[in-house]
Amino acid sequence: MNYPNGKKTNNKPVTNRKPKQTPNFSNRGMTLEEDINQSNQAYLSSGRAVIHKKPTPVQIVNVDYPKRSAAVIKEAYFKQASTTDYNGIYRGKYIDFEAKETRNKTSFPLANIHEHQVEHMKKVCEQDGVCFAILRFSKLEETYFFPAKKLFQHWDRQNNGGRKSIPYQTIQQEGHFIPLQYHIRIDYLSIIDEMYF
Amino acid sequence: MNYPNGKKTNNKPVTNRKPKQTPNFSNRGMTLEEDINQSNQAYLSSGRAVIHKKPTPVQIVNVDYPKRSAAVIKEAYFKQASTTDYNGIYRGKYIDFEAKETRNKTSFPLANIHEHQVEHMKKVCEQDGVCFAILRFSKLEETYFFPAKKLFQHWDRQNNGGRKSIPYQTIQQEGHFIPLQYHIRIDYLSIIDEMYF
Repeated sequence: MNYPNGKKTNNKPVTNRKPKQTPNFSNRGMTLEEDINQSNQAYLSSGRAVIHKKPTPVQIVNVDYPKRSAAVIKEAYFKQASTTDYNGIYRGKYIDFEAKETRNKTSFPLANIHEHQVEHMKKVCEQDGVCFAILRFSKLEETYFFPAKKLFQHWDRQNNGGRKSIPYQTIQQEGHFIPLQYHIRIDYLSIIDEMYF
Repeated sequence: MNYPNGKKTNNKPVTNRKPKQTPNFSNRGMTLEEDINQSNQAYLSSGRAVIHKKPTPVQIVNVDYPKRSAAVIKEAYFKQASTTDYNGIYRGKYIDFEAKETRNKTSFPLANIHEHQVEHMKKVCEQDGVCFAILRFSKLEETYFFPAKKLFQHWDRQNNGGRKSIPYQTIQQEGHFIPLQYHIRIDYLSIIDEMYF
């Protein structure tokens, strides 16, 4: 592979939990959503998977239909999503995940994820879907694949009066570090290859 | 099962192609989308499947953020969907479909379906997803499960100068009639049970 600096990188195994990124892959200015969209687009063009971000749910209240031009939505409101943001298919398997970033450095606040999203993820697991979260510590520039079943443990513990966040070390241990790469910025399907195939 | 008229209905096999509906199941006033949403809701509550309609894609241009109240979208436009309207998971399988109605009685116009939707469906089939269209002849009050692979044949024929619609008789032959029912109005998963399990 040709990287912009012309050097070969150390292709560490994807489960390597001690991240070290080359400066060229720095994520400054790119949001997690942009990285995932880029990756999904790369998967789609190469025929590897069909995974899309769902449109933002909007409650449309008032639409104007001008003559000879497109309808204009004049009043609408953001609705809370009742499912996760991303889903699709990979190698015959249903893929479903949520992506979240935090600026915290020591833990991931569970408040970032909503009750009905967790409920949705539980239902997907019951149907044998591949379900997970992609969590990013944006200040640390580190991104993790975090299996839904692990997330449920922390979520249910919180609901029983436990801590309201997942410690950084726990995410390192129970999750899988996703190195930031050039061609496919967040290659989460490689983690799925390891875990499910 | 208790139907509103207190009578037992003849539960015909779902692949029966000669539809006969009791008046109570008449669909007058219910759109295909409403029927499918009701069915998906029933599947979800009973834990049978997790299938949702994707939100309408909207291009947001201008948002107002009033103090102490919710953000108001002041200008937005409808975008053309790049995928199908519905997807989800059932018994471990990825489910993906488009739903369309026509007021025609003799054929289904292919203009109702967009090029990029067919492209999406082809990609889903390559990944071994369960992909199909639900087609309704609203004047006839008849709804059909139509496998994507059959749809592609008609689509590709059209692109090679063939006819621009699928004849009603062909849909009866190549599709599966979905009877309108009370508890689950459009029980398309029963067709999938027959075809894939």
